[in-house]
Amino acid sequence: MAGGSLTLTETGFVLMIDRTAGARWEGNLKDGNGTVRLGSGAFEGKYAFGTRFESAAGTNPEELLGAAHAACFSMALAAGLARAGHSVKSVDTSAVVHLAKVGDAFTITGIDLVTTGDVPGLAAADFARAAEDTKKNCIVSRALAAVPMKVEARLA
Amino acid sequence: MAGGSLTLTETGFVLMIDRTAGARWEGNLKDGNGTVRLGSGAFEGKYAFGTRFESAAGTNPEELLGAAHAACFSMALAAGLARAGHSVKSVDTSAVVHLAKVGDAFTITGIDLVTTGDVPGLAAADFARAAEDTKKNCIVSRALAAVPMKVEARLA
Repeated sequence: MAGGSLTLTETGFVLMIDRTAGARWEGNLKDGNGTVRLGSGAFEGKYAFGTRFESAAGTNPEELLGAAHAACFSMALAAGLARAGHSVKSVDTSAVVHLAKVGDAFTITGIDLVTTGDVPGLAAADFARAAEDTKKNCIVSRALAAVPMKVEARLA
Repeated sequence: MAGGSLTLTETGFVLMIDRTAGARWEGNLKDGNGTVRLGSGAFEGKYAFGTRFESAAGTNPEELLGAAHAACFSMALAAGLARAGHSVKSVDTSAVVHLAKVGDAFTITGIDLVTTGDVPGLAAADFARAAEDTKKNCIVSRALAAVPMKVEARLA
């Protein structure tokens, strides 16, 4: 879905951007199969019990969640450093999403971020501080506030 | 990253599955550009300020988050109905992720799910009840507990 709209709310005009995605599942859990699609059309892919809970080839909700998180995090960290006057060559972040079964239920028990910055002249401690701040405050981190997170920050 | 592992914790052996994703951003916010990648290799795509906050073609973190949510939701709802003895032809779910700027910060202010089930013999009220339960309890819904959600359930 494209672009934003200005919506009048009780507190004034609010810029709203709506993004869509979808997924279709056919059948039961073990033998069924799914298709997941991005609203932009950039990707559509298959997923199944085997791609989520075993090692079959294909995507799964957890890596899509990790991609959302890493994408938001890298963009936000770079934006914050640039706003602070730094010249950002790159920020590259990997997200590992942990899915664990304890008792009966699978739960996302944590997300570990490792971010590598190529930012000439930036001190390691300042990069680490900015990474911690982004871990708490980037848009997707706030949406995932229920999930414990760690970030490891490295300068290239 | 493939498959699961059994890890010994204080409470016994725990099945752990790790999924990875990553994103690289180059440059500042407005002129920079990003690449986001799924650990399975199923997708890699470009994103930028224009694809996230304007209407440029490409992906963005919010639709990736919506895809994670819709994929988990459709799979979980179908699984629950099948477990209850129903024959599930399909469950198709769209997620609309609302990103709004109120004051200075963009925030994911809500996710609206619309789910359509093709489940012969299932009553509409039972499908709606199962959809509400899945909205609260599916793996990704619990990770996104900080975000207000609604679900509209329809039978095909």
